[in-house]
Amino acid sequence: MRKRLVVIGGDAAGMSAASQARRMLEESVLEIVVLERSGFASYSACGIPYWVGGQVRERDALIARTFEEHRSRGIDLRMRTEATEIDVGGCRVRFRDSETGAEAWLEYDQLVCAMGARPIRPPLPGIDAEGVHGVQTLDDGQALLETLDRVNGRRAVVVGAGYIGVEMAEALLRRGYEVTVVDRAAEPMSTLDPDMGALVRDAMCGMGIKVVGNAEVSEIRTGTDGRATAVVTGTAEYPADVVVLGIGVRPETALARAAGLPLGEHHGLRTDLAMRVRGYDNIWAGGDCVEVRDLVSGRERHIPLGTHANKHGQIIGTGIGGGYATFPGVVGTAVSKVCELEVARTGLREKDAHAVGLQYVTVTIESTSRAGYYPDSAPMTVKMLAERHTGRLLGVQIVGREGAGKRVDIAAVALTAGMTVEQLNTLDLGYAPPFSPVWDPVLVAARRAVTAVRERG
Amino acid sequence: MRKRLVVIGGDAAGMSAASQARRMLEESVLEIVVLERSGFASYSACGIPYWVGGQVRERDALIARTFEEHRSRGIDLRMRTEATEIDVGGCRVRFRDSETGAEAWLEYDQLVCAMGARPIRPPLPGIDAEGVHGVQTLDDGQALLETLDRVNGRRAVVVGAGYIGVEMAEALLRRGYEVTVVDRAAEPMSTLDPDMGALVRDAMCGMGIKVVGNAEVSEIRTGTDGRATAVVTGTAEYPADVVVLGIGVRPETALARAAGLPLGEHHGLRTDLAMRVRGYDNIWAGGDCVEVRDLVSGRERHIPLGTHANKHGQIIGTGIGGGYATFPGVVGTAVSKVCELEVARTGLREKDAHAVGLQYVTVTIESTSRAGYYPDSAPMTVKMLAERHTGRLLGVQIVGREGAGKRVDIAAVALTAGMTVEQLNTLDLGYAPPFSPVWDPVLVAARRAVTAVRERG
Repeated sequence: MRKRLVVIGGDAAGMSAASQARRMLEESVLEIVVLERSGFASYSACGIPYWVGGQVRERDALIARTFEEHRSRGIDLRMRTEATEIDVGGCRVRFRDSETGAEAWLEYDQLVCAMGARPIRPPLPGIDAEGVHGVQTLDDGQALLETLDRVNGRRAVVVGAGYIGVEMAEALLRRGYEVTVVDRAAEPMSTLDPDMGALVRDAMCGMGIKVVGNAEVSEIRTGTDGRATAVVTGTAEYPADVVVLGIGVRPETALARAAGLPLGEHHGLRTDLAMRVRGYDNIWAGGDCVEVRDLVSGRERHIPLGTHANKHGQIIGTGIGGGYATFPGVVGTAVSKVCELEVARTGLREKDAHAVGLQYVTVTIESTSRAGYYPDSAPMTVKMLAERHTGRLLGVQIVGREGAGKRVDIAAVALTAGMTVEQLNTLDLGYAPPFSPVWDPVLVAARRAVTAVRERG
Repeated sequence: MRKRLVVIGGDAAGMSAASQARRMLEESVLEIVVLERSGFASYSACGIPYWVGGQVRERDALIARTFEEHRSRGIDLRMRTEATEIDVGGCRVRFRDSETGAEAWLEYDQLVCAMGARPIRPPLPGIDAEGVHGVQTLDDGQALLETLDRVNGRRAVVVGAGYIGVEMAEALLRRGYEVTVVDRAAEPMSTLDPDMGALVRDAMCGMGIKVVGNAEVSEIRTGTDGRATAVVTGTAEYPADVVVLGIGVRPETALARAAGLPLGEHHGLRTDLAMRVRGYDNIWAGGDCVEVRDLVSGRERHIPLGTHANKHGQIIGTGIGGGYATFPGVVGTAVSKVCELEVARTGLREKDAHAVGLQYVTVTIESTSRAGYYPDSAPMTVKMLAERHTGRLLGVQIVGREGAGKRVDIAAVALTAGMTVEQLNTLDLGYAPPFSPVWDPVLVAARRAVTAVRERG
């Protein structure tokens, strides 16, 4: 008998799961229905800052696969269709067609929860005013671009200095705005240790971006027309023709919670290694709505990132298709850029190591992206954490120019393999003058970390 | 009593060993004498193609540390001083001052063999003619540059299409020459499999470089003035105003052999993991004159590369200084470029896997350096070898444009850790649209390799 797979959410995790299941099982064996509440599916949310910034000209360039392509591959993708309830006992999902308002139940044999995450919007006065924009979805990006075209303003304030915040700062700078970034933390990019975040702040200031740390936003001030005019903090007011919120996201798990599915301390769904929801044989979950195992700390984390969502979907689709695949966890790798500055991190920060009771040593070194004598050799700073006594690599942070960001992959693989800094130090990495100094910057840091581990016992 | 360390060879391995030993032991404890037969020490031979090509303006930019700097740090560096005999029983080295011709013995407590490698010069008619140049040493580079300035020619022939050959092809192209590269193998870059080498050939042809494969050079033709005029192969003749030899090198181990030190099948010195010559407590060896363990095949190899030489020196110096460090081996990582083309490899080629009796599957994929929609996203081809049945990663080769070369580091670390392609497939690598597609090209290859391993059992 033909089985039915229902997928809630048609972005990275959901559509990857659907596509992979379809590759493995024919339509006569498995019907696949995807419920997507928005007007878009399969798009790169990570690309929105570059669309706003103008490097990507067309919205549709961000859409990996169109509605028609999915339908032609035998995936019953239903747009503007919102799941409103999961009935686990009855193996069915209730949904509403946003256009007609009609509701109905849909039975499933297999269910994939891929609802993604929801941007945090603190309940501040003015937060819903015109001119205040999130940048989570293509709809958000479209709305922001329309505002930018209409207001033809001069001053932009970005609330939040994480990845999205700094990427949006670049985008707005490229569009000619005077940009102020306001953040609660002392330094931008709080996924880095503050000493590395300070390098990012200095570089952003050098680009003409005003960076305000230790600032709690208390209000978005609005004009008589109801439009945002300024961002107010405890001590100051920053005039704004447009306000962009880049505060972060939370797992979109209200439905899952109501259905009694298991959530973790970060409110994300809990799964096994095959991405099955714990305790359920026929319910799977992946992407921004799940928690994942941090392989370095051993703790669960919530890391909303398209690359994980795609992998989760692939793994889920393989499992549903009757194959076997697992997602062992993450090491917390992330890379970003602000104009020419590249910022990357993987593993634990100092405070993460503290939090799990690990003793560590840190080293910070300066090196270059290429041999010093080679043209366009660019400086970079590498910070490395290693466990005291054992020398196990715990984390790496890199701030630099061209060639800095993806070097973090070396450390990401080494963390996954559980290497010590001594093992790192003798790695056989690609060397030629246009690509690296004779000691790769990551190895320079490892060598210093070996010494630090020895000296501190 | 003050001990004496004698180092034979003052380039990467020798000077790194001397410098590290000096860092660990004071002059009152250890005297350090380095015998260097040429007029230069501590230089980047890997940088010579870029000096010839004009990207590096000054020869001295390639010198990491000057003669005076070494002397001021308490290293008795003796230039133009050639070791002529090692007396292992008597713990002494005979040397000749090349300027005065005087010879003498020098006793040692510790000896470091860092004689490097010697370029292969097949005994062909005309091989020693004027206008025929190696590019192994700074002296070679200087001589080539003088020839280029003097002859003001139009046509250059490079013999050998390995790393040095293709880098010299770029250098000569940059200087306005019509460049022909002649090689014995069917495709350039025989450190790659031929199918990947073919991509390099196509790209080189697109740059206007003439690439002649399957061609055995039989003679360098000379004019009445004794200068080289053409390179002759079995079937053709290639006119040349200048000829550059990039045929490869052999370990410079004549002295070591005469002294009875153990050599391997590639004529390199054999050492333990701490880089001590096997069977000797006070003789060490590193750099281009040693063989190293290939961690993937388990066999010994000769890999002349500055980055290894530097590590060897560091490890030797640490050992002499009373510390403990080891060099576990290599995975065979190398990266190079020809103009905009980046070429990288690590691990085993198909023929290497054959040679050690490993069954394998291969996959080759096309991907891009950045998200497809992001500006300057450049294509790359990744070939991956995995062991049949087990899925153990065996090797990766990458040919592409900007962003291709250093991606090989991901595979280099994974090979070192003995990962399977399934483990590779779930690695947490840096992702953001300016840095990578949502599946890094190395992961795309891994995913395909997982399927290939499963399908081929």
